[in-house]
Amino acid sequence: MILTVTLNTALDITYRVRALRPHSSHRVSEVTERPGGKGLNVGRVLAALGHEVTVTGFTGGATGRTVREQLTGTAGVVDALVPVEGSTRRTIAVVDTTTGDTTQLNEPGPVISAAEWAAFQETYEHLLRSASAVALCGSLPPGVPVGAYAQLVRTARTLAVPVLLDTSGEPLRRGVAARPDIIKPNAEELAELTGSHEPLQAARNARRRGAHTVVASLGADGLLAHTPDGHWRATPPHRVPGNPTGAGDSAVAGLLSGLVENLPWPARLARAVALSTATVMAPAAGEFDHAAYETLLTGIAVTGDATAA
Amino acid sequence: MILTVTLNTALDITYRVRALRPHSSHRVSEVTERPGGKGLNVGRVLAALGHEVTVTGFTGGATGRTVREQLTGTAGVVDALVPVEGSTRRTIAVVDTTTGDTTQLNEPGPVISAAEWAAFQETYEHLLRSASAVALCGSLPPGVPVGAYAQLVRTARTLAVPVLLDTSGEPLRRGVAARPDIIKPNAEELAELTGSHEPLQAARNARRRGAHTVVASLGADGLLAHTPDGHWRATPPHRVPGNPTGAGDSAVAGLLSGLVENLPWPARLARAVALSTATVMAPAAGEFDHAAYETLLTGIAVTGDATAA
Repeated sequence: MILTVTLNTALDITYRVRALRPHSSHRVSEVTERPGGKGLNVGRVLAALGHEVTVTGFTGGATGRTVREQLTGTAGVVDALVPVEGSTRRTIAVVDTTTGDTTQLNEPGPVISAAEWAAFQETYEHLLRSASAVALCGSLPPGVPVGAYAQLVRTARTLAVPVLLDTSGEPLRRGVAARPDIIKPNAEELAELTGSHEPLQAARNARRRGAHTVVASLGADGLLAHTPDGHWRATPPHRVPGNPTGAGDSAVAGLLSGLVENLPWPARLARAVALSTATVMAPAAGEFDHAAYETLLTGIAVTGDATAA
Repeated sequence: MILTVTLNTALDITYRVRALRPHSSHRVSEVTERPGGKGLNVGRVLAALGHEVTVTGFTGGATGRTVREQLTGTAGVVDALVPVEGSTRRTIAVVDTTTGDTTQLNEPGPVISAAEWAAFQETYEHLLRSASAVALCGSLPPGVPVGAYAQLVRTARTLAVPVLLDTSGEPLRRGVAARPDIIKPNAEELAELTGSHEPLQAARNARRRGAHTVVASLGADGLLAHTPDGHWRATPPHRVPGNPTGAGDSAVAGLLSGLVENLPWPARLARAVALSTATVMAPAAGEFDHAAYETLLTGIAVTGDATAA
């Protein structure tokens, strides 16, 4: 199975209102809820691609119960979340029905105790023993040490499980130094890590810092990959309108499934770009349009070189 | 015991953000949750005044579970809420920490089936048999007939239980025609009911429509009461700064407790105004400042006449 880790899971709530006006009262016309946090999104896409997935991380409180109940209904996803005393955070996306513009409200995560963090590490090590790959995704909740991802990367490498890290800021900086197999920053996260706004130069810099492979997501321009086997760029055939929420998580699912299927890099990148583009095109945030994915897969342009590293 | 009815209960959530800006992302610095809906607020204040209270209405889903769990911890309040298939709504108040201004997002209530409405009416009639008074509070969730309050008023009158109605719009219009003992509209609700923006004239009109007593809340100007025994006006000693959320519910608790204690009207009104003023002064929305209440009680000016009806 593929393991995904979401230390700061969420109950993602979407509200539709006519138009958000500060300091007035709004009647919400439509409410949708789904389990959230990057690793859970990655797991859902991997399961849709036919992979066996186990999701772990922290969950707690009434919102955590809702997250687990909704995960139970997701075929192919095994729930190995670790219960905590605090409550799983809510994120609220308020969508203006007139324009489609979105206002985001993110609760802080629950405070994780030292004992809960220790219990998680034990579960994680146990799960890794039957994992073909692991993705470490998203922000850290309060209480978890800033070097958490570095530690989780080292555990995976000790057990020879390929590890992908998708986070930002100081947790990314420390995690990279522990030498993960793949990092997947966006342009902004990569610039913050390396100080360079030129993606190719920044990717080289991130590899020198410890990442074996850097796959930078450049939004509508696709992906740029810098690997020990060469470097490539994969771009979608055309720009698509839609909601980019979850597009990065779909790209991670594409990279990870390609890794465990031993696909060559150009095929992995084509899959990742097709999945993330099909996610932007789906009507519901974070879902992907399966028919569009199949069609896109043949239209992704991958350029690069297998010898230049 | 005193019975309060909240057909559209809520989980009231308060978020603190620096300043809400549409179409951007916000980190919520503080989250608070409490059971909401007018009848639950009234019940909490009655319990704080030392009365035995039973709360009924509808509750369902994960949010309903949270409401019930939090009610369990409220001394003096007995939970007789009727379970339904749909989910209890959330209301979200986003408070700007820089200015104190609040943006409100209200989910729609769960759709109530005919069977659930019938089950509620049975519970209601059963509970009324041991009630000394009943308050019918707030909006109707989808599926409940618009004449619901008229029906509940008639049942209470048949069983000779004094009934206070606090709602608005068409449910108020129909409820008034069923001859409730007391209605407690604010100036806007009273104007909508009667077509008159002059409170004294509007109160007379509402009594002609069927209400035995009309107690109009005039915000910071206090209360205006038109009763079969006379009419009075009760005003707080001075304007107070603060959050008016729940002030009307505290006034209802004051009127209802005064009714079952057989207080004369001037004392009932003084209590209601002191309670609602002490609610505006409390730091948390919907709570009341007990010390301020005791002090205010002696400073409320009540003017009027016991013979003029």
